[in-house]
Parts: sequence; C-alpha cells; structure tokens
Amino acid sequence: MRLAVLALLAALPGIALADPLPSWNETDAKARIIAFVDGVTDTDSDTYVTPADRIAVFDNDGTLWGEQPVYFQFLFAVDRLKEMAAADPSVLTSDVLRAAAAGDMEKIAAAGTDGLLEIVSTTHSGMSVEAFQADVRDWLDTATHPETGMAYDAMIYQPMLELLSYLRDQGFTTWIVSGGGLHFIRVFSEDAYNIPPPQVVGTTGNATYDVIDGVPTVLKDPGIFFLDDKAGKPVAIDARIGKRPILAAGNSDGDFEMLEWTTAGEGPRLGLLVHHTDAEREWAYDRESHVGRLDRGLDEAEARGWLLVDMAEDWARVWPAGAAAR
Amino acid sequence: MRLAVLALLAALPGIALADPLPSWNETDAKARIIAFVDGVTDTDSDTYVTPADRIAVFDNDGTLWGEQPVYFQFLFAVDRLKEMAAADPSVLTSDVLRAAAAGDMEKIAAAGTDGLLEIVSTTHSGMSVEAFQADVRDWLDTATHPETGMAYDAMIYQPMLELLSYLRDQGFTTWIVSGGGLHFIRVFSEDAYNIPPPQVVGTTGNATYDVIDGVPTVLKDPGIFFLDDKAGKPVAIDARIGKRPILAAGNSDGDFEMLEWTTAGEGPRLGLLVHHTDAEREWAYDRESHVGRLDRGLDEAEARGWLLVDMAEDWARVWPAGAAAR
Repeated sequence: MRLAVLALLAALPGIALADPLPSWNETDAKARIIAFVDGVTDTDSDTYVTPADRIAVFDNDGTLWGEQPVYFQFLFAVDRLKEMAAADPSVLTSDVLRAAAAGDMEKIAAAGTDGLLEIVSTTHSGMSVEAFQADVRDWLDTATHPETGMAYDAMIYQPMLELLSYLRDQGFTTWIVSGGGLHFIRVFSEDAYNIPPPQVVGTTGNATYDVIDGVPTVLKDPGIFFLDDKAGKPVAIDARIGKRPILAAGNSDGDFEMLEWTTAGEGPRLGLLVHHTDAEREWAYDRESHVGRLDRGLDEAEARGWLLVDMAEDWARVWPAGAAAR
Repeated sequence: MRLAVLALLAALPGIALADPLPSWNETDAKARIIAFVDGVTDTDSDTYVTPADRIAVFDNDGTLWGEQPVYFQFLFAVDRLKEMAAADPSVLTSDVLRAAAAGDMEKIAAAGTDGLLEIVSTTHSGMSVEAFQADVRDWLDTATHPETGMAYDAMIYQPMLELLSYLRDQGFTTWIVSGGGLHFIRVFSEDAYNIPPPQVVGTTGNATYDVIDGVPTVLKDPGIFFLDDKAGKPVAIDARIGKRPILAAGNSDGDFEMLEWTTAGEGPRLGLLVHHTDAEREWAYDRESHVGRLDRGLDEAEARGWLLVDMAEDWARVWPAGAAAR
C-alpha cells in the first residue's frame, strides 16, 4: 500500500517526497527512526500498529529544549524568589532559600533535589493556576539565557521539532512526560512543540479548589503532589495515557524507567536517548553532570537496543533557523 | 454560514437533517442543549468557541450509566472480596471487610465512604494494572445486575450516548471525570461511550513501577492516591486537561464543584444535572439517596442557570435498543 503510493508519487512529474527530518544528518540514527516509523505505519507490515496505539512520549529538559547550566524552570524560580524576597524578606525561611535569593548556585547544588524542590515549591504556590501561568509567560517573554542570550523558549531542538511533526504526520499522538512542572511546561508547549495542554505530563504540586471572593479557583499550594521522574514516569504514563507508548525519547537517567517500560512492550518499540556531545553548538555532558545526568543509560543503551543519538554527529543543526540572542 | 448550509441541505431532495438526539423528548432540555451547541459552533455567533476549547466533561455513575442499588464498581469489589476470602480468609482484616464478604450491605453502608474505600482498596491492589483490568473485563462479561438482570455495561443511558456523539460530531472532546476508579472505567469506556483511555479521569489508587522477575510492571498498591470527587474534580480537570471545560454534566452533589467551576468561566457554558425521576424505567432518587445524593444541586440549579434534566419527562427512552436481561 505505502509502496504503491510512493510509486505513484514518484511517477508524477514535479512532486518530490520531502525529507521529514531535514535537520538530521544521513546517519544510522535517522535511518533507524524512519525504518521504525515505516514499520508501524505500513498496513502490509507485520509490525503495523493501529493509529490509536501510536503513542510517543518525550522528556522535555535536555530532550526537547536545553537544560544547561541548570533547568530553566529553576532559573525562573530563582528570579521569582528574588522578586518575592525584595517585596517581603520574611519569605526566606531556610538556608537554601537564602542561598537561592543570593544567587549562590554552589550552595543550592549542595542541597540536591530536596533543596531544588523547596525553592520550586515556595515560588510556585499561593496563587491561582492562571496567575502562575501569567507569571511564567511574562518571564519567558523577557528573560534571556545567561550564556546564549536567547529566549528560553527559543532554545528548542530543531531536529526534535521535526521528529515530533513527522510522528504526528504519521498518525502518532505526541506527549511530553517531564520531571519539570506541569503548569510551567503548558505555558509554552503548544507554541513551541504543538503539544496541547492535555498531552503534557509533568511534576505536579499540591492544589485545591475553592471559591475565593465569589470566584471559583484552582489554587497552587505548597508541596509536591507527584514527582514525575525515574520510576514515577511509567506510573504517570499509565495514569494519564492509560496505554504503554511505542516510542519513548529522553536524555538522562531520569528517563531510564520510561524507556525500559516502553521498550519492554510487545511488538515494535523505539527507545531513544539524546546524548549531549556537542560542546560547540550546545553543551557536552553525561555521566558527571548535575543536570541531565546520563550514566546507566549510556552503559545499557546498546544492549537494550536503544538508539543513542549523538548530537554532534547526528544533528545537522541544533536550534531553529532564526534563533538568536534577544 | 451554518444557515447557508442548512438552506442548501433543505434544498436537496431526499436529504433530511437527522435529529442528533432522537431519544430526547421535544422539551426545553433538548432545545437548550441544541441552542448551546449551535451557539458555540456557529462561526458567525458571538458565542463561537474554537474546537480546541470545546471540552465537555461527564461524570460516570448515575450520569452515563446506572448506580443503583449501589455503585457497580462496589459490587465488583464485593464479588472480588468473596473470591479472595474463599481462597484465603485472612484477607478479612476488619469488620467492614468481613461484612462485605458476608454481603451485609447495612453494615457496609454504616461504614460510609471510608468503609467503601477500604473495600475497594483491598480488592484493587497487589496486582499489575493489566491483571486488574482482565479481572474487571471477566466480571463485566459474566455478572448481572441484581434487579434488571442486565450486564452492567449495558446499563448505559441512550440519551447520554447520543449527547456524547452529538458533541463529538460538533467538534467537542468528551471526557469522563468520575469518582469511580480510573483503571476500572477504562475497561469499558471505549466500547460503551467511545471515550478512549487518555480521556478518562477518575479516582486513582497508589501505584508503583518495578521490574518483577525481569518484567517491567506498573503495580496497583493499597491506598487511595487521589479521590476524584467534589472539590477534587476541578483539581483533576486542571491537572489532566489543563483547560476549563465549557460543558459539564453530572447527577449528584459530587459534581457540584465541577459544574460550579465550569459554568463560572467566561463565555458560553452549560452545566447539566441528570435528575433521577423515573421509578418506572430506572430509579427515582435525589436528596435522601445513599448513592448519587442530589440535594444542594437541586436547590441551586435554577439560580445558577444549570439545566436540570428530568429523566421521566425529557428522555424518550433510558436504555439502548436491544438492552435486555442477560
């Protein structure tokens, strides 16, 4: 069926089949992705998968957009905390909050995940979802990355945008499954990736519903309700999507269980890890990085049949055309 | 635009516009639903809503299928508990579990929501999601309702099925937002309502991911992670859908906050409550019922502009054609 269509198109003068992944070099990585998609979409293939089951899940930080020198959401949180502390210094109730407001990144790094979550929780609560998202929108519209000078939501990976579009064109539903915040990601996911709010899965804070001064409101409360990382990712995918994906893409050991669960399913599966090897155009990091650490995944990818994408080798470009310092 | 299409169709011999809601009587309820849908889909209307924002949420028990004499999921849980106790009586660790295994409904009712959740939690954990859902499938394929003799998943309301189809035909996305169990509802929601797994929101048990004997597995654990009822419903809709619906349908005070939040949004909104008034074809209950209690909603529906659907008056039929005792 597909071959017949290809033959027909080839026979028509002036119609060329467009390359669905123009920002990918002609390496094995691109060939494996296209072979996988061909296999699950060709109705004559043994590996055909019905469109309703063509679920593809993508990590966000380091997979769809940058994550150096530190998760962008964390930079937002620190900017917010500084504003909050300027208005009312009593919000700085702990050493890690004081360190964050002072921009002491070493002290924050030493506080680990718990410190990071405390900073996020403090700055992402006590307001309605709408008010929070308006803050994020303002920040994205004005803040610039400390090294590239670009807007954060311009630091998205062109090859991955093409992969998302290609998959959707081939009948896939694309989801984000991120350790980052659900409400944070939704502010830009539709514009940046064409992924609408219901298809964003992320870390979720506590929330309550209340009628405040007569206005029914969903409020963001302190504390983390669900941490969508590591073994949390398969749990969240089951709860949110209710089907096991056939394609999972990540870049760190936080994505290990998501890839493990996805690729353990029956039939054709693709696990993909973006390996940050490109110090020139982006950053080079893996086993020793404090963000996006990739260690076990690097050891086990080959034996597990996961595709390790070498950013320097496999990508013809990193950022979208026209991306530049603000 | 819409009028032009209507005129064109009317002019074509042999083409009649099909009634989208044939099982609804020609009462105000039907007229209000159609006027609402016309208003949000007519591109020339001030109340036009873009398809991406045409989100409609439906409660399940008592709104899409029956809930008397007690929630069907609870009857499944009791049947499961009896099987479990026959295999190993030591599972009956409390008075309410012993009462449930003995079929002592009065004692169970006296234990209230906590007792019900204990019974559900005990019978819905300690297995993979797949194994649980296979159990539910078996039960639905064999069990019969104690009063109607029908299969439980045949006890769905034909008028509501038509409403779901009509909305989808008009560009809406239809979601279930239920106090019932997420994994339970997904077993039949696609066949019964044409609502796929990602569009089911429900009460969620604790879960973990683990590799068991080499098999990556999402396990159902004891305990309730999120109770999707009352004020939980707007919180869950925000987390799962990320947009405020424009239509919400329920039948009990457990749906009050969902309707309140939905109808408080800007622009056209429809809140709908199914009022069980039909002792002859179904059941008649509201303020005093131990399931699907409708009290505050009944008092406030009119002032809030919510549509109170009178099952006896507004519905030409209750069950689908061909529905009969097994």
